Amino acid sequence: VSFIGSGNVATHLAMGLQAAGIELQEVYSPTKINAEIFADKFGCKPVPDIGLISDNADLYLIAVPDDEIRRASEMLPSLKGIVAHTSGITSLNSLSKKNKQAVFYPLQTFTKDRPVDLSKVPVCIESNNHDTVGSLSELAGKISKKVVIIDSDKRKFLHLAAVMVNNFTNHLYHIAQEMLEKENIDFELLLPLIAETAGKVQDISPVNAQTGPAKRKDSLTIDKHLELLANDPEYKELYRLLTAQIIKKYHE
Amino acid sequence: VSFIGSGNVATHLAMGLQAAGIELQEVYSPTKINAEIFADKFGCKPVPDIGLISDNADLYLIAVPDDEIRRASEMLPSLKGIVAHTSGITSLNSLSKKNKQAVFYPLQTFTKDRPVDLSKVPVCIESNNHDTVGSLSELAGKISKKVVIIDSDKRKFLHLAAVMVNNFTNHLYHIAQEMLEKENIDFELLLPLIAETAGKVQDISPVNAQTGPAKRKDSLTIDKHLELLANDPEYKELYRLLTAQIIKKYHE
Repeated sequence: VSFIGSGNVATHLAMGLQAAGIELQEVYSPTKINAEIFADKFGCKPVPDIGLISDNADLYLIAVPDDEIRRASEMLPSLKGIVAHTSGITSLNSLSKKNKQAVFYPLQTFTKDRPVDLSKVPVCIESNNHDTVGSLSELAGKISKKVVIIDSDKRKFLHLAAVMVNNFTNHLYHIAQEMLEKENIDFELLLPLIAETAGKVQDISPVNAQTGPAKRKDSLTIDKHLELLANDPEYKELYRLLTAQIIKKYHE
Repeated sequence: VSFIGSGNVATHLAMGLQAAGIELQEVYSPTKINAEIFADKFGCKPVPDIGLISDNADLYLIAVPDDEIRRASEMLPSLKGIVAHTSGITSLNSLSKKNKQAVFYPLQTFTKDRPVDLSKVPVCIESNNHDTVGSLSELAGKISKKVVIIDSDKRKFLHLAAVMVNNFTNHLYHIAQEMLEKENIDFELLLPLIAETAGKVQDISPVNAQTGPAKRKDSLTIDKHLELLANDPEYKELYRLLTAQIIKKYHE
């Protein structure tokens, strides 16, 4: 496998692939020093120009920002191996047709210096070629226990849902932290609740896991909360919107 | 300890107290059969009338809906023991002054038939009496490693923050599930991401854990997501609001 891109996604995938005994060949990054650091870390070769990448890999993984995927795929030379991007929201067709197009999308949030157990991360595979799907699924099966074949249209919804349960949820954590710090309350007090909230839906459907004032339509408590948010019009609006949606789910 | 109320909070606290070797005396519930089931489960005595509860407990825990706490405390007889409610949002002063007033608030989401490890659950204690704070803290320390003394004004913010990271987060899970099911995509694919999102902030501050299109101000992806939500005006509004708030956090 060779990499185009050397950021978080590339780094975590490279770790997973290497741990599974797969050889990493080359890496290209528009920022030369990043390619060198990556190459050093994984014992592969940094390539100074994307057009000079060698034809010796079975798979070229493009892990660059979404809006650079098309251009990167076009700048690659003609290759025997598969060229796959790693994006949730980008369609298969964004890749240049000159090579074998595929998608290899790991459904997880990757943060620098935080190891992730890839074996539990679903890898979403797509290609317009049956053999390519087969080879990629086999490779994905070496790093993850959960390999799914899913087309671009469905993958977009999966990506949107991922943003909701990850980015938006993390934003709620962020708001909670801000609010508590303003009141000199330790955010750590919320950590067991945060863990249990995510833990619960591993076993129970979210619709059955819900608790709290909105679910109970407890307007006394809701009004008290809105009062606490009197000086935060944006969070107050968010509170109102989410509360109204939850009430609607359980009382209409 | 005797209980007023026999719902989720009462049941989970009773399990924790009993496991810590604390004797349960009596239980009162306005629904007689619930008191009997609870009494059966914990080997204590059901009391048919709140005014007849015995004076033999060190602590009376009121675990009833928030708007019934005041009335329940007023209907209790005069007691030597402490009378504590278990609510996050209700102030200490809501309790009748005829008995020793206190708060014993376990910061967790409790669901029927789902065991919770109380040793990790913060218990928030309050009283206007120094000795009562001491006795309650000692008792709380028998079921939890995290006992904090916190007044009613601060506890309200803690409760609001808890609603955000629990109820609102669970609602996001719910929306994601709905959306995926409509597209025939298995919600289970999101579970590792949900677990990692909550896992990350156990170690990293939410502000540093954030990833995704809003954080990157990636309007191309954001527009694609809004398009997918074209038929869901309410979720689209929620998406817009949360995205705008995240962008503001990282780009203003």
